[in-house]
Amino acid sequence: MNKVPLLKALLDYHTEENLILSMPGNKCGLAFKRDEIGKIFEENLGRLDITEVDPLDNLHHPEGVIKEAQNLLRDYYKSKKAFFVVNGSTGGNLTAVFSAFKEGDEVLVERNCHRSIYNALMLRKLKVTYIEPVIIEEGSLFLPPDKNNIYNALSKANSPKGIILTYPNYFGITYNIEEIITDLKGKGLKVIIDEAHGAHFGVCEDLPRNMCELADYTVISAHKTLPALTGGAYLLVNDENSNVEFYLSTFTTTSPSYLVMASLDYARNYLQEYGKEDYESLIHNADLKREEINSLNKVRIVTKEDLPDGYDIDRTRYTIVLPKGYSGYKFLDYLRGEKIQGEMAFPSGVVLILSYSQGLDALDKVHQAVDKLDMEILKEKEWKFNYSNSLPIKALEPYEVLEAESENIGFNNSLGRIAKENIVPYPPGIPSICLGEIINEESIAAIDEFLEQGGTVLGINEGRVLVCVRGKGESN
Amino acid sequence: MNKVPLLKALLDYHTEENLILSMPGNKCGLAFKRDEIGKIFEENLGRLDITEVDPLDNLHHPEGVIKEAQNLLRDYYKSKKAFFVVNGSTGGNLTAVFSAFKEGDEVLVERNCHRSIYNALMLRKLKVTYIEPVIIEEGSLFLPPDKNNIYNALSKANSPKGIILTYPNYFGITYNIEEIITDLKGKGLKVIIDEAHGAHFGVCEDLPRNMCELADYTVISAHKTLPALTGGAYLLVNDENSNVEFYLSTFTTTSPSYLVMASLDYARNYLQEYGKEDYESLIHNADLKREEINSLNKVRIVTKEDLPDGYDIDRTRYTIVLPKGYSGYKFLDYLRGEKIQGEMAFPSGVVLILSYSQGLDALDKVHQAVDKLDMEILKEKEWKFNYSNSLPIKALEPYEVLEAESENIGFNNSLGRIAKENIVPYPPGIPSICLGEIINEESIAAIDEFLEQGGTVLGINEGRVLVCVRGKGESN
Repeated sequence: MNKVPLLKALLDYHTEENLILSMPGNKCGLAFKRDEIGKIFEENLGRLDITEVDPLDNLHHPEGVIKEAQNLLRDYYKSKKAFFVVNGSTGGNLTAVFSAFKEGDEVLVERNCHRSIYNALMLRKLKVTYIEPVIIEEGSLFLPPDKNNIYNALSKANSPKGIILTYPNYFGITYNIEEIITDLKGKGLKVIIDEAHGAHFGVCEDLPRNMCELADYTVISAHKTLPALTGGAYLLVNDENSNVEFYLSTFTTTSPSYLVMASLDYARNYLQEYGKEDYESLIHNADLKREEINSLNKVRIVTKEDLPDGYDIDRTRYTIVLPKGYSGYKFLDYLRGEKIQGEMAFPSGVVLILSYSQGLDALDKVHQAVDKLDMEILKEKEWKFNYSNSLPIKALEPYEVLEAESENIGFNNSLGRIAKENIVPYPPGIPSICLGEIINEESIAAIDEFLEQGGTVLGINEGRVLVCVRGKGESN
Repeated sequence: MNKVPLLKALLDYHTEENLILSMPGNKCGLAFKRDEIGKIFEENLGRLDITEVDPLDNLHHPEGVIKEAQNLLRDYYKSKKAFFVVNGSTGGNLTAVFSAFKEGDEVLVERNCHRSIYNALMLRKLKVTYIEPVIIEEGSLFLPPDKNNIYNALSKANSPKGIILTYPNYFGITYNIEEIITDLKGKGLKVIIDEAHGAHFGVCEDLPRNMCELADYTVISAHKTLPALTGGAYLLVNDENSNVEFYLSTFTTTSPSYLVMASLDYARNYLQEYGKEDYESLIHNADLKREEINSLNKVRIVTKEDLPDGYDIDRTRYTIVLPKGYSGYKFLDYLRGEKIQGEMAFPSGVVLILSYSQGLDALDKVHQAVDKLDMEILKEKEWKFNYSNSLPIKALEPYEVLEAESENIGFNNSLGRIAKENIVPYPPGIPSICLGEIINEESIAAIDEFLEQGGTVLGINEGRVLVCVRGKGESN
């Protein structure tokens, strides 16, 4: 038996020497080598782990070098306060939700927000009004909600205290969010932006702006696109009257990693010193290669032109969609066989996260892999899920669902019952029924049809689904 | 201006080449060098950071190598479930409290428990009954609560659902906790043990046993004493009917560090493969040198013989107390001047955390430093805080305090007001008034006297204190 299975697997993976087009943004150390101090950091990582000793300050009560580093971060992103987060954007999202809202507050939330937002809604006991995403029929991509969907949700809500938006989404897709934030703030709503995938935004003019100056709370996963270690994130705050320091401290280990914190310091300085030059050059190369790859007419790297009006896409990310009837999962596997590690697959494509540190060679490698790809090996059944026009009715708030007892029943007997978990058909990966909503006839029919085709539905296991035992208001 | 103040400070600290007798247990990488795979890990740390890619499993839904590694952990500590925690014992404590208890439950808690426990009590909205620590007048040490204090608290509580105990305390002091846990579990109480400083317990017979097999939840900071990276902890669970996976996932980043997780895998295997041999040898050496150092008659490394009946101390930790009138803080500084990094200072001494990886040389260095120490440079005023026999009255639960508005008033005008923060005289570092308690005449007199002598009191700044604006039951 393997005595250190995880350590062994990690070391084995390293020996494969894949081209890392997934997270982390440090690209297995490569991106730290931008300058001498980064190189020394990367080479000595194993010897630098330390606890809070005298000259190294204290993340929970910063008065020295951590305070100085956080002030530089604040100045760079132009927010009023700035914090290093060692518990990822998850820690940032929990903190933002607890700081911005009080128990019982109503908030507008995207139906397919990140799991950490759902968890924060439950723990903070908030009332939710969902915002619908936009689905593109062709290509099985989904987009962030458009302005209509956001204002529809606003008009349905009773007395919303705020809104939580994901910007950009996992595909790197953006929209004109500034105008919306400004308007909603004017209406007195607190605005939280989960900008996990946009740490590099704003570093040059070819990239979308970041929302750190505008939103009340902006959460950024530095580790996703910048030279920072996994788990390292930033929290930028403009809401001056909140208890943000307390909540951040609550959700953060009292033994935060100096490796992660130092990498967060490095990443901010990277953006300031080299960001504009490096990202302009990266986008130039990425644009060039995108055209070459697209002109092979096998797969399609999404551009602004492929998206409806008002949407844009992060040009440092290759969101590659396949023609109908081909599998993104198989494509990710194929790339891995070609020693290219993609970030993620979705039913109809994959996402690759590019880096300045890998140069034109990396993009050539992707080009070559697509060029010699035999599309036959990616063939897959074609699925389509018919979303109902009428949304399910919400019977319980997420926190009531958390507290409710559950029962595992046949999906076909679930009519009128309250879902205990989100029910999510893949594709496209958007909840058809959210936890707390009543399972209706239309949803059952659509999901049944989808399952009969062989589609995958998260939340349904072998034809069974978890529902709440008690009805509305009876939650334990 | 320094462009990367934190990274620079970290690299500078490294060049000092101190003997690390503080956390982390990996001793700046040294402790990973116990075998070949550990050496490879340490040397390649900068190149191993990666996200969840195919063969490396998913901490939030483990089915592969992480599951395998966690099963080995479970078998080693003999609990029913075992989890890697990347957000430190803080993450483990939050998870344990949320899993074990429901809102409104009453729990017994040590008055000087770790901050993460206080935070968990607030967020989970629990009612608390405090357990008193035991203070040793001589040496200004404090001990874990004895059996009397625990059962006193139990008799005062209305309908307690559980108890949270710290074992060992920061000084490494232990007591016969097994009997107490067994009895309280028999009475139907859930038992959470914050065993942050006892990851190595049970590895050989010269060490206290660990509570992982016995308690409902045991939280262990692997990074404190074992070869693991800062922030890496274990959560061992025997409570099978709880929602522990959900809460752990909630408090954990969805981008957990593979460096930390792999180090947790390494640390468990270290204990299994080399632990007994290494710790027996470490204790042999530590005992030998302790006697030599103590026989210098300058400082006193605490032994079992120095403690009241029923208490013991972790022999891999040097808890060094100074004679009255000498400062532990100055001693920590002195050691640092001698290139020895201690773990922490308290008013009358310091704590050093020893490691198998540093050998007899390390202990010799401590011996030499004490030998040549001029005690004069540690001289300090003598302080003593007079604890009242009657505890302050609790007016608000911690979660009510969190929600209450606060007011900053002169401490001398605070009679009858409810403290918003713990008020903690140093020495000995035990709250004189806990948040939510009513500030009484006796406390004011004792603290005034202490402050007049020049003592430090956390929670009082320039003679002012934060109190709650509203009275009991009026909390917002």
